[in-house]
Amino acid sequence: MKAARLYDYDPAMNVKLVVEDIPSPTIAAPDEVIVRVGAAGLCRTDLHIIEGVWRPIMDPDNTLLPYVMGHENAGWVEDVGSNVRTVKPGDAVICHPLRTCGVCLNCHHGHDMYCDHGLFPGLGLDGGFAEYFKTNERSLIKLNTDIAPLDVAPMADAGITAYRAAKRAAKMLPPGSWCAVLGVGGLGHIALQSLRALSGCRLIAIDREPGAQVLARELGADVVLDGGPNLIAELKDITGGGAHVVIDFVGELGVENICWKLLRKGGECIVVGYGGTVEVPTLELVANEIRIGGSLVGDYTELVELMELNSDGKVKMHYTAYKLDDINTAIDDFKNRRFTGRGVIVP
Amino acid sequence: MKAARLYDYDPAMNVKLVVEDIPSPTIAAPDEVIVRVGAAGLCRTDLHIIEGVWRPIMDPDNTLLPYVMGHENAGWVEDVGSNVRTVKPGDAVICHPLRTCGVCLNCHHGHDMYCDHGLFPGLGLDGGFAEYFKTNERSLIKLNTDIAPLDVAPMADAGITAYRAAKRAAKMLPPGSWCAVLGVGGLGHIALQSLRALSGCRLIAIDREPGAQVLARELGADVVLDGGPNLIAELKDITGGGAHVVIDFVGELGVENICWKLLRKGGECIVVGYGGTVEVPTLELVANEIRIGGSLVGDYTELVELMELNSDGKVKMHYTAYKLDDINTAIDDFKNRRFTGRGVIVP
Amino acid sequence: MKAARLYDYDPAMNVKLVVEDIPSPTIAAPDEVIVRVGAAGLCRTDLHIIEGVWRPIMDPDNTLLPYVMGHENAGWVEDVGSNVRTVKPGDAVICHPLRTCGVCLNCHHGHDMYCDHGLFPGLGLDGGFAEYFKTNERSLIKLNTDIAPLDVAPMADAGITAYRAAKRAAKMLPPGSWCAVLGVGGLGHIALQSLRALSGCRLIAIDREPGAQVLARELGADVVLDGGPNLIAELKDITGGGAHVVIDFVGELGVENICWKLLRKGGECIVVGYGGTVEVPTLELVANEIRIGGSLVGDYTELVELMELNSDGKVKMHYTAYKLDDINTAIDDFKNRRFTGRGVIVP
Amino acid sequence: MKAARLYDYDPAMNVKLVVEDIPSPTIAAPDEVIVRVGAAGLCRTDLHIIEGVWRPIMDPDNTLLPYVMGHENAGWVEDVGSNVRTVKPGDAVICHPLRTCGVCLNCHHGHDMYCDHGLFPGLGLDGGFAEYFKTNERSLIKLNTDIAPLDVAPMADAGITAYRAAKRAAKMLPPGSWCAVLGVGGLGHIALQSLRALSGCRLIAIDREPGAQVLARELGADVVLDGGPNLIAELKDITGGGAHVVIDFVGELGVENICWKLLRKGGECIVVGYGGTVEVPTLELVANEIRIGGSLVGDYTELVELMELNSDGKVKMHYTAYKLDDINTAIDDFKNRRFTGRGVIVP
Repeated sequence: MKAARLYDYDPAMNVKLVVEDIPSPTIAAPDEVIVRVGAAGLCRTDLHIIEGVWRPIMDPDNTLLPYVMGHENAGWVEDVGSNVRTVKPGDAVICHPLRTCGVCLNCHHGHDMYCDHGLFPGLGLDGGFAEYFKTNERSLIKLNTDIAPLDVAPMADAGITAYRAAKRAAKMLPPGSWCAVLGVGGLGHIALQSLRALSGCRLIAIDREPGAQVLARELGADVVLDGGPNLIAELKDITGGGAHVVIDFVGELGVENICWKLLRKGGECIVVGYGGTVEVPTLELVANEIRIGGSLVGDYTELVELMELNSDGKVKMHYTAYKLDDINTAIDDFKNRRFTGRGVIVP
Repeated sequence: MKAARLYDYDPAMNVKLVVEDIPSPTIAAPDEVIVRVGAAGLCRTDLHIIEGVWRPIMDPDNTLLPYVMGHENAGWVEDVGSNVRTVKPGDAVICHPLRTCGVCLNCHHGHDMYCDHGLFPGLGLDGGFAEYFKTNERSLIKLNTDIAPLDVAPMADAGITAYRAAKRAAKMLPPGSWCAVLGVGGLGHIALQSLRALSGCRLIAIDREPGAQVLARELGADVVLDGGPNLIAELKDITGGGAHVVIDFVGELGVENICWKLLRKGGECIVVGYGGTVEVPTLELVANEIRIGGSLVGDYTELVELMELNSDGKVKMHYTAYKLDDINTAIDDFKNRRFTGRGVIVP
Repeated sequence: MKAARLYDYDPAMNVKLVVEDIPSPTIAAPDEVIVRVGAAGLCRTDLHIIEGVWRPIMDPDNTLLPYVMGHENAGWVEDVGSNVRTVKPGDAVICHPLRTCGVCLNCHHGHDMYCDHGLFPGLGLDGGFAEYFKTNERSLIKLNTDIAPLDVAPMADAGITAYRAAKRAAKMLPPGSWCAVLGVGGLGHIALQSLRALSGCRLIAIDREPGAQVLARELGADVVLDGGPNLIAELKDITGGGAHVVIDFVGELGVENICWKLLRKGGECIVVGYGGTVEVPTLELVANEIRIGGSLVGDYTELVELMELNSDGKVKMHYTAYKLDDINTAIDDFKNRRFTGRGVIVP
Repeated sequence: MKAARLYDYDPAMNVKLVVEDIPSPTIAAPDEVIVRVGAAGLCRTDLHIIEGVWRPIMDPDNTLLPYVMGHENAGWVEDVGSNVRTVKPGDAVICHPLRTCGVCLNCHHGHDMYCDHGLFPGLGLDGGFAEYFKTNERSLIKLNTDIAPLDVAPMADAGITAYRAAKRAAKMLPPGSWCAVLGVGGLGHIALQSLRALSGCRLIAIDREPGAQVLARELGADVVLDGGPNLIAELKDITGGGAHVVIDFVGELGVENICWKLLRKGGECIVVGYGGTVEVPTLELVANEIRIGGSLVGDYTELVELMELNSDGKVKMHYTAYKLDDINTAIDDFKNRRFTGRGVIVP
């Protein structure tokens, strides 16, 4: 089959993925499933993988290259292991990014990302920038009728990461309350739609890019700000004292220390983007009773819920498609912000 | 001032309210507020008051008549007691139906309806079917700009009763789940809009009246059913096993024992309407792990949230207005279902 | 191996289990585990199985007999399937009663009892009244050091059923609140200990049996009542208006309609025992805003928590042990209440 | 009456409170209550007031001196305003430190510390280091029979601050989970007892002082550590990966940046002490999905719950009593850690 493999890490990102013919994956365990890839989303984490950011954690001995990247996958079931009974060849599916064991205590709790034996195809083992891709039954969700893999692939990772943060936020956002979303990119635009669906709160979208601002307005943000130097005063004025929840999809470049200053008493800042360091006086935490906390990739059950919202027309992914042969162009366009929403690779 | 007073209880409801001139209420305590009535909703409880249903509880010695009815009030502040500082004459306000003490433990918890010393104007003491009405500062919410008392008065009781049930339901309704609403009248139509605002679930509205069915569709119900004899099988088929939550605004005429049969495993039936008796085998409760529970009038904070939804254009009251002089016509039309939504009395 | 099998259903319960030699179970699927039985609890459900109560649901075609009963099992791992990696031969384990698939949406949520493909060994397929017993890896919990299977076997079903109800109750029971527990038998005595561990509330235990009353006092009940004809008035007086939560381990014989009358406004009645029919006016549900709901067997994660409490010395099972050869004596003693706590069968 | 007043702020703390005769407070509004002081706790905040830490916030124009300090008060009702009906002269009471309005939205929610019009006697207006003290009806809780004001006074502030943090922690602490408490002083020793009462988790107490370590063991800590340089590794080893919740009663001296490193994935650090600055990489927040958040003085309803625990013998205050005439000695002993638990002033 045709696949795009990484042969080298390079902090300068001058390496290209190699599109080449390799053997297709085959069933080796009773719970495995081969998926014919319909589409695979391109993620900022893919850039970080190429840069070698994850090498110390995932490939410390530098023994895993080359491998196929791609962890936001959707397609059609091609083949199934002997124990598989909930999907069959031909079913359209989306794949939760983690292959979980289903047996450890974290799996029993439904905390997929904490699985004691989880595998993450596309990061250290073969992923979905290829014609075929191998995962296990537990990671699959059948698509509702009329949903095409191409339209939803990035929901598998970008989507549920945004949805998880939005769902946590929604529980703290009764009608009349304010939620500020910093960064209206691949994740932020899903968060805005999810918040609109799950909560009767008021939404403030903050992004410097005019294109992102237009998108935020289309998706129902009540207020759109450009995040200029007066952001804190401006937002406190609009909200009458600060946001009840802030979701930070940036997490670096100084944004990480503006976020929590946007909160009112009792508020919570949910951090999704990363790179910077939060510096907050304990007196601020205590006197205003604010919380700051990170949010990871969503669980399988959150992907199920997100696909239901998608099926009901309430959350849609904005994307630009590239052929697998053009994956290096896609990566280059992504680095240089030449498209809005998400880039998606089609085999 | 002009006011409509009840002079006699009558199970046959042949009595009329007497519209007459009586002295206006005056401030007698430091926390009291006189409201110039803008509008007062007509509630099914008003019919029950006239019928004498509440006499054994609220007026056992038959000593309280005559009094002014009307407990869904909105208007403008006319006069304030010496301790009042959050409202001033001229402010447009809506009145939570209960005058609470603010001191008992239930008040500290925000459980207004459980207040140890609560008074309910319009039921045993003078209410709002009049030009002026007396309550206390704690019961008042200032209306957002551009909101007229006439457009929101029934929110004060019908609205928050529906909203409270919807809010409780929404916590159990993730995307992809189903909520069935039985009865799309004065309360049900508010519940549908509230659920739409607070939850990404799917809504099934059930009502025999064609007018109510049309309204349910306009308000965003995903499915509208007429509640015929196949309701249970029909709903289980549509939902793939039953509703996650059912809200019963009828509570009598046999509906009370259809409701819980619409639930799937782990589901909850929220009962708002009353009159009938639920009969449920404990085996059904246990084997299906279902819950059945009542819901009362909402708290002050719920009225605040509902007014925010109203101000944001997400929940609107459908009503027909009558002049205070025509209140007996309004009551007659209500008994005979000659209007849809809510009837509202304007002084 | 030696095993006790049921050959016939009999409402009059005149049949005996047949203790005989049958082939030991063997591994047939990669996730299966053979457990050498250390002990197996005797449950009221076992009586109902013999009576044929479950035949219409579990064995409608009457094709499953004979089989080995016993669904509250603990012991040591004897053999494992090829995919099993979290336990190994020799490990002491307790077995959640349901063999769940780990793949369906309910399993992803951790709702074991709702599993789409769950099997219940001991009810329609071979269980643990035997020397060996087959289940799957997902159902197993390794025992903490120093815990013997004999001391915990009934935790697997009786224990977690009580614990699940107690945990749900504890969330509604702040310090100063009251919880009433009706029935201090095999489940009730676990519920009392669990509530003591999880909540700072006050406990009222209600049971007609003097032995159960003594046990309740030993386990820390603040008040012990015998459930006489003045129970409702007595309890309302002690609690200043009613219990915040009632747990009903009886569910029949009229108790099911006393329970909800013990509640104060806003209270919840958790029904675990079954047999009777709840009859409650909707006016009672609404005016007092009470809830009545069933509770099933606990989830795997609840069994994990209960075993932690047991390991910490906070919850202990009271039991009487019988040899497998004497199982029919054990059943007879159980029917005639000749022991307190739980009966346990040891191979 | 005799009272101890502050006449000057002094960062070096060389000033003394002046014990002198001043007029007793009198009722000036219908909701006011005069309390004959039984005891008043001495709080670290009192030291900060003397140092002038709060001057910029509470007394920016330096116009409020002299005033009576003391905000942890209990005693007996001496006189009541015309509207007061829940307490009467002679009633033993404890006083929530904030005089709240009862009318603003925050009060309706029960968020006392966020009250729009709250007053804090002892900080800018006369408090309880005196024979008599004035507050309002809403702040009072009647003591259960047999509870003496002297035994509970510091519960009013130190107690509920610790209890609020413990209650929030307990919701995240199922059996088998671990909670680490840093600092076993006036607050920490209440938190340990509260956690023991509210949760079945395991407790690790951390304090450098041998006396505090002994106290922690007596109060039921499962593990007591001295917080040496290997604390993080040591605690991760004991807990199998980190604590589920950490409560930091220190919040300075470097402790604030050890705390969150003690957490396992998904854990939360509750910050109560203050002075330092938290510095945490967003990557740590996200990859481990941890939260860090402050906790303030508890609400009125939390003081009610704490008093119930105290009445049930589950939470007791350890203290040393001083006469009002000796208040400067008490302050000096406090600064120099010459007593354990709390210092209490008796008029």
